[in-house]
Amino acid sequence: MASPPIKVIVFGATGNVGSQIIDGLLKSATNFDITAISRPASLDKPANEEYRKKGIKVVGASMTDSHDRLGEILLGADAVITPMFPTELDQQKRIIDVCKEVGVKRYIPSNFMPAMPPVGVMGIRDKKEEIICYAKLRMVPYTIVDMAFWFELLPYKTPSGKVDYALPPGLDSRIDGNGNVPTAYTFFNSLGPAVAKIIADPRTINKYVYVYDDVLTQNQAVDVLEELSGEKVERVYRPGEDIRSSISATRAKIAQTPEDTGAFISLTMEEYSYSLKVRGDGTPEWADYLGYLDIFKLYPDLKKRTLRDFYQGVLDGTHKGPFN
Amino acid sequence: MASPPIKVIVFGATGNVGSQIIDGLLKSATNFDITAISRPASLDKPANEEYRKKGIKVVGASMTDSHDRLGEILLGADAVITPMFPTELDQQKRIIDVCKEVGVKRYIPSNFMPAMPPVGVMGIRDKKEEIICYAKLRMVPYTIVDMAFWFELLPYKTPSGKVDYALPPGLDSRIDGNGNVPTAYTFFNSLGPAVAKIIADPRTINKYVYVYDDVLTQNQAVDVLEELSGEKVERVYRPGEDIRSSISATRAKIAQTPEDTGAFISLTMEEYSYSLKVRGDGTPEWADYLGYLDIFKLYPDLKKRTLRDFYQGVLDGTHKGPFN
Repeated sequence: MASPPIKVIVFGATGNVGSQIIDGLLKSATNFDITAISRPASLDKPANEEYRKKGIKVVGASMTDSHDRLGEILLGADAVITPMFPTELDQQKRIIDVCKEVGVKRYIPSNFMPAMPPVGVMGIRDKKEEIICYAKLRMVPYTIVDMAFWFELLPYKTPSGKVDYALPPGLDSRIDGNGNVPTAYTFFNSLGPAVAKIIADPRTINKYVYVYDDVLTQNQAVDVLEELSGEKVERVYRPGEDIRSSISATRAKIAQTPEDTGAFISLTMEEYSYSLKVRGDGTPEWADYLGYLDIFKLYPDLKKRTLRDFYQGVLDGTHKGPFN
Repeated sequence: MASPPIKVIVFGATGNVGSQIIDGLLKSATNFDITAISRPASLDKPANEEYRKKGIKVVGASMTDSHDRLGEILLGADAVITPMFPTELDQQKRIIDVCKEVGVKRYIPSNFMPAMPPVGVMGIRDKKEEIICYAKLRMVPYTIVDMAFWFELLPYKTPSGKVDYALPPGLDSRIDGNGNVPTAYTFFNSLGPAVAKIIADPRTINKYVYVYDDVLTQNQAVDVLEELSGEKVERVYRPGEDIRSSISATRAKIAQTPEDTGAFISLTMEEYSYSLKVRGDGTPEWADYLGYLDIFKLYPDLKKRTLRDFYQGVLDGTHKGPFN
């Protein structure tokens, strides 16, 4: 007899992270009963129309709706996932309260970032820790899913301009620190298939899971790009101290003008650089130190993709990233 | 060939917790090389004299000594343990820095309290979380050892006064909440043997371990005392709401007079009551939820002692607790 479907509710379902997760659920062999939550104003978006065609229930709601309304939506859920804008993380506390009230079996808050010490490295991680601690205070079953830095955010350029179409906007082609610190990377679209496995797996309840693909230093990454492209990449190094100064200056700016979203994004990217490329957070070894389960130890059948796969796709012109 | 001894350094070695740990190390079958750190003024205390007779190195030092001095002491340590007064927890940050510098293989900060959500339940746990997060920020290998509430703190009295000699000072013989919430208990001296196993075990590196013995509700605890003593115990219930009010009032008092140590101790005991006997924190199930390893799953040969053992000892007049 087939087991009953796993009932999953995804907020922010048409966003970057939400749509990756839905895609992973749809492609999984597991039987999921998927509800996509969309802001009422976005119900007629083409993405939601596509979801409906694929058998997904699309429900118009907002995380700020009444407790009762949210309770009706979450009742009976095996998993509730809330990808969030970094500025809206606090809204998750109400969702946690509702999960507790209606007995949701597993809550997955908006983490989805490189593994790092919970407090003191990045402002956004500190804030996410506050949400995780709130879920634990309310004794709500949870899974924390974090993922390595995206290949798609690598900034390196070749003289021919061949990779330019795949570059993220606004990032300098530079090497942070000495370029010799190992960093874990993943494809952005490794998240969805991983989440589909994680939420169907009782071993991951009340656990932290780390999703990654390849681990290499920035110098090794540039070596791969040079080898595959046959071009020489200019290596511009930026000392760790400069990144620290930039972080301090941007923090001061935000203290003066907290509504400056651009400064907030800059700060976050600089904090990532310092954490991953100078401190060396986010490798599978340090994730293990912090208590994470390793996605490849949990699911040895998952294919580990490499930086070589990424740059080959970019050079072939077949790359489709979250920014293009 | 015998393996080399495990080099352990214990601060506060003549204190309540420190002496339990040293005792556990001495009685263990594992070969430990023990250094007891004592404040220079206490070097001639009888307890230190006893330690020397048992082959323990006693070194006069303080946690506020210079980095260099502390570095010399901690160099080569397999495990460093720092039981602390709750008001001095911050001193551990310097020890963590030194552990990082000299490559200590495992740091055990002063936790040794019931498992509970890391933030928002008890002030003292919030403070300990700050220390744990600092160790993670510095990427120092750690083990968090927590332990259930002590049998020795049970306050129940019988009319004959037979158990009075064993009672902790200043605790009312009352039942907190409805008396039907399961609470985990342990003998105070279960800690030492557990620590001896934990620090000799590579499976516990960078993990949380929970030490406990028996689990029962307050009503069940009183039932056991009544059965063993043949006396009727008066059951005075205090509603959870009253404990919350008392906590709020004591917090307000401390905000006005932070140096009031008595108020701090009262607050801590009231917060324990609310956490363990109303919320229901600290059972092995909730410790598992929070990511702890279970001491009996790690070491099935450990003998699980019961409340019955405790009260039988008290009624036999053979009980020796930390308070008498």
